[in-house]
Amino acid sequence: MTAYTQTPRTRLRRRHDRGAHDRETVHGVLDAGLMCHVGYVVDGFPHVTPTLYWRDGDRVYWHGSSASRMLRLQSDGLEVCLTVSHLDGLVLARSGFHHSANFRSAMLFGRARKLDDRREIERQLEIFMDRLVPGRWAELRPVTGQELKATTVLEMEIDEVSTKIRAGGPVDDEEDYALPVWAGVVPITSRIGTAEPDERLAPGTVPPVGLGQFRLG
Amino acid sequence: MTAYTQTPRTRLRRRHDRGAHDRETVHGVLDAGLMCHVGYVVDGFPHVTPTLYWRDGDRVYWHGSSASRMLRLQSDGLEVCLTVSHLDGLVLARSGFHHSANFRSAMLFGRARKLDDRREIERQLEIFMDRLVPGRWAELRPVTGQELKATTVLEMEIDEVSTKIRAGGPVDDEEDYALPVWAGVVPITSRIGTAEPDERLAPGTVPPVGLGQFRLG
Repeated sequence: MTAYTQTPRTRLRRRHDRGAHDRETVHGVLDAGLMCHVGYVVDGFPHVTPTLYWRDGDRVYWHGSSASRMLRLQSDGLEVCLTVSHLDGLVLARSGFHHSANFRSAMLFGRARKLDDRREIERQLEIFMDRLVPGRWAELRPVTGQELKATTVLEMEIDEVSTKIRAGGPVDDEEDYALPVWAGVVPITSRIGTAEPDERLAPGTVPPVGLGQFRLG
Repeated sequence: MTAYTQTPRTRLRRRHDRGAHDRETVHGVLDAGLMCHVGYVVDGFPHVTPTLYWRDGDRVYWHGSSASRMLRLQSDGLEVCLTVSHLDGLVLARSGFHHSANFRSAMLFGRARKLDDRREIERQLEIFMDRLVPGRWAELRPVTGQELKATTVLEMEIDEVSTKIRAGGPVDDEEDYALPVWAGVVPITSRIGTAEPDERLAPGTVPPVGLGQFRLG
């Protein structure tokens, strides 16, 4: 796969060894997560809002209530920065200074577009839902016109993007390796737990086949 | 505990039932996490950078290399928005529209201050490290003057802040409860795994007592 174009905003200024712009790495970081943080500017002030997102090809999507001020602002082509991060571990070194964290992150810059076409909106909601629980969309009653009106789906090209990844153990000063100080990595993982059924399930209702197929991280 | 003051930026515009500004809730959301997302504006464009943070009383802290452009910009009193989010579960409803997510988030607005006093910096690094592994700081060799110079610690008052929390099962349209569609919550948790020792540990080195005491979430 080819790489996304680098720009002054996405070129890493330090630690170039940790950066990448190729599609495989970018898509890998995006596809490992559910929640992103969207940054945008209101009256000159930065705002960072967490929201669920998904990817379809070279585009990312997020959605919510049409009454959301954030989505209304972003529908109008406001500049956003969408960041996805996974904290993979704490890196304990032999000195305080070399303690670090293992992580994978992707930072996307651009402007969002609000989906207007009903079929396009439904298709994206289906992709989103089936990502979480494969086959889920087909099990649900059709979405109503009113529900679609109350839902805003935003789309953004993955174009100006950078990833940053740190993995592996501590890197200490050579003279510190002799110290009797424990060093290593404490891994951190996100885990999908056992589904908890709602109290008011209709009799005979069974869990969807796709439940539990989604893997985080 | 008393509550933080509400401002136009931190007052929830919708779903007031999900918002809170009291110290207990704010501190609870902050203390459950390790990584925050800091938003700031550069040349008019929003940037969102993930970084580790910690809390000490009514202040939050984050740190990094003194060569970091983000930290240099923020040292000069740039407005920031620091957001901490925990995704607790996927809420599967009987209709696509009522699918939701359980989460806890805190959004802090303000300006950061760079710590200048050596003892203050060391004290905060100790608080940070001992939060991850109690007693760790005392086990490490003293930090050098050069290391301190290469480290920037930023401090921000927790003042203008809001939290938003959704918990519990799906809330469906009354007529949908009869549908034979599975509904419930798929919990998501962050987990600290078993520590992996570095290959070059000095002979006889044992893991720190505090390892594994930190709880995420």
